[in-house]
Amino acid sequence: MSADRAGRWPDYAARRSALRSLLVENEVDALLVTDLVNIRYLTGFTGSNATLLVHSWDMRNAEDRTVIGTDGRYHSQIAEQVPDLRAEIARATARRIVALAGEWQMGRIGYESHVVTVDEHRGFVEQGTGLEFVAAPGLVEQLRTVKDDYEVEQLRAACAAGDAGLATLLERGGLRPGRTERQVARDLEWAMFEHGAEAISFETIVATGVNSAVPHHRPTEAVLAPGDFVKLDFGAVIGGYHSDMTRTLVLGEPSDWQREIYALVEESQRAGRKALHPGVKAADVDAAARAVIEAAGHGALFVHGLGHGVGLRIHEAPGIAKTGTATLLSGVAVTVEPGVYFPGRGGVRIEDTLVVREGGPELLTHTSKDLTVV
Amino acid sequence: MSADRAGRWPDYAARRSALRSLLVENEVDALLVTDLVNIRYLTGFTGSNATLLVHSWDMRNAEDRTVIGTDGRYHSQIAEQVPDLRAEIARATARRIVALAGEWQMGRIGYESHVVTVDEHRGFVEQGTGLEFVAAPGLVEQLRTVKDDYEVEQLRAACAAGDAGLATLLERGGLRPGRTERQVARDLEWAMFEHGAEAISFETIVATGVNSAVPHHRPTEAVLAPGDFVKLDFGAVIGGYHSDMTRTLVLGEPSDWQREIYALVEESQRAGRKALHPGVKAADVDAAARAVIEAAGHGALFVHGLGHGVGLRIHEAPGIAKTGTATLLSGVAVTVEPGVYFPGRGGVRIEDTLVVREGGPELLTHTSKDLTVV
Repeated sequence: MSADRAGRWPDYAARRSALRSLLVENEVDALLVTDLVNIRYLTGFTGSNATLLVHSWDMRNAEDRTVIGTDGRYHSQIAEQVPDLRAEIARATARRIVALAGEWQMGRIGYESHVVTVDEHRGFVEQGTGLEFVAAPGLVEQLRTVKDDYEVEQLRAACAAGDAGLATLLERGGLRPGRTERQVARDLEWAMFEHGAEAISFETIVATGVNSAVPHHRPTEAVLAPGDFVKLDFGAVIGGYHSDMTRTLVLGEPSDWQREIYALVEESQRAGRKALHPGVKAADVDAAARAVIEAAGHGALFVHGLGHGVGLRIHEAPGIAKTGTATLLSGVAVTVEPGVYFPGRGGVRIEDTLVVREGGPELLTHTSKDLTVV
Repeated sequence: MSADRAGRWPDYAARRSALRSLLVENEVDALLVTDLVNIRYLTGFTGSNATLLVHSWDMRNAEDRTVIGTDGRYHSQIAEQVPDLRAEIARATARRIVALAGEWQMGRIGYESHVVTVDEHRGFVEQGTGLEFVAAPGLVEQLRTVKDDYEVEQLRAACAAGDAGLATLLERGGLRPGRTERQVARDLEWAMFEHGAEAISFETIVATGVNSAVPHHRPTEAVLAPGDFVKLDFGAVIGGYHSDMTRTLVLGEPSDWQREIYALVEESQRAGRKALHPGVKAADVDAAARAVIEAAGHGALFVHGLGHGVGLRIHEAPGIAKTGTATLLSGVAVTVEPGVYFPGRGGVRIEDTLVVREGGPELLTHTSKDLTVV
């Protein structure tokens, strides 16, 4: 963990405090947090094993019975990363934390029923603490949809590393006929690392020619050829936050068909971005972009949702799809990524990462969306 | 998916057939497989959304009602990767597959209760199919512990890429005073890619000096200095299979303290490897290695288990720890990785990936375990 470029630090205590308001609303005395990304969000801990108990009921001294557990591997790491909370070190970490909640007679304990497995839940109950376990799914995820200033700064940095990585790839001539999808993917990832990425957001997609018609194509030994669409979908992680961007380029002079389909997806993507406003339903954003493609008669070729929330996970709430029920709020970070895919021929997807704002979204991925001819 | 270096192909039908024997033992009519790695193991499908129903009861024509579902993004991919099974394309994938099982009146459906969340399980039940959902945890994982020839060949290739990556790092002088942990990590990962890795197994650990005392240290801007222990824990993925290796080197002439602790961990690791035989309990392997460290009075500094199974996941069954109840079988792939960590001073871990065999384990990570002075 470190300050962002503007010198900000994450305010974990404020995030836990916001969570406590949700606990009161949900009528639970505490939340057992077992999702590691949620724990990172609430405490800064990045180890691979942890359980966090955030209690709600003693608001006078609210961190008293908020406790994080991990195992012996992370003894020093947890002291360093979470100096402000009591830490328990135990091999059976969750069991220890549940036992503590039982000793404290906490009553109704919310648990993350969208993350906790059936077996884990049975384990909690069979521990015989007398606690009542109540399904409380998605509470931390709900908080996480709205990014605070620190988080937006991380996302900006991650998106900048993605932009810079692609620019470096192109400057070096890394995208040209004769190279393989895998070579391009490795070079692009390497360039993002050179520009400060601590990890890549997901397995980089490089899809050339007919492969560009496969929405989530994994790079192969396929060789880039003149006239190909090359679809690049990739991102960088900085401070735990993921960027996500897709650009589709053409190798050499585009055909009329390519220009046409590219212009269509570009127009759809613009419509999706323009629809991003606080108070708008996610489904309506999807509809705004989809209508453009449907009007051109290609609705059946846009086979996925328009976008998704992005942050500590590459895919998080809210989903921007036909079925998206979330209402967008200022500070929500999402992707907008329509695509049209002609099986056996080729496809185009254009994707940005943006933050919803009053007065129009803040664009975080700045690479040009004009049809780029390489 | 591709043939291994010996020209072998994975026999998915044989794996599903082996699973059916477990379904009969567990008295279920079918298994609803939702873990993506288990689905890859049983079908070869590598997409990010899938549900698989493997039915047990009609052994005459056993693949008739074995069906895989995914969504529209993977329409062409699933046809290519899983040509031998019926595929359903549906946005609500699991729901569709459960509905089919209901139409087929399958009766008792096992589900992966160690993976399925409380919310997902409630969704299955509330779908109202009349099916009886029965917890059936870990069945595919049980099969996965024993690697077939194809899998061992993938593991060999992955470990070879790890060995070659480290050799390349050293040949290029990438490990020397003045460089940062992060630079070393990136160079090592890059070298593994050059040697054919399709991904890295996990975030590479490079821990220099006092950081080597942190068992799972994340690379920082810390600078390598003369006299440091440098602990490297890393791996490559090939064909979906993960290698895992740790080596601890010294920059310049080792001190007596460093020689002593290195020799101790080396002896412990050898004892662990020697204990790997079919029929031995995992806890006894852990004990064999731990006894060496305990006899030297440093038992409290060996703060983690001895090792873990490795394959399509970096950590899988069986766990090799004090609490390890599994009995090793021939073909089980595991790591052996004792460590001794002096907080604030430094630590040593030595780790190999091996396959349990009659007559002694097959070593897959071939980099020397002699104390290497850089």
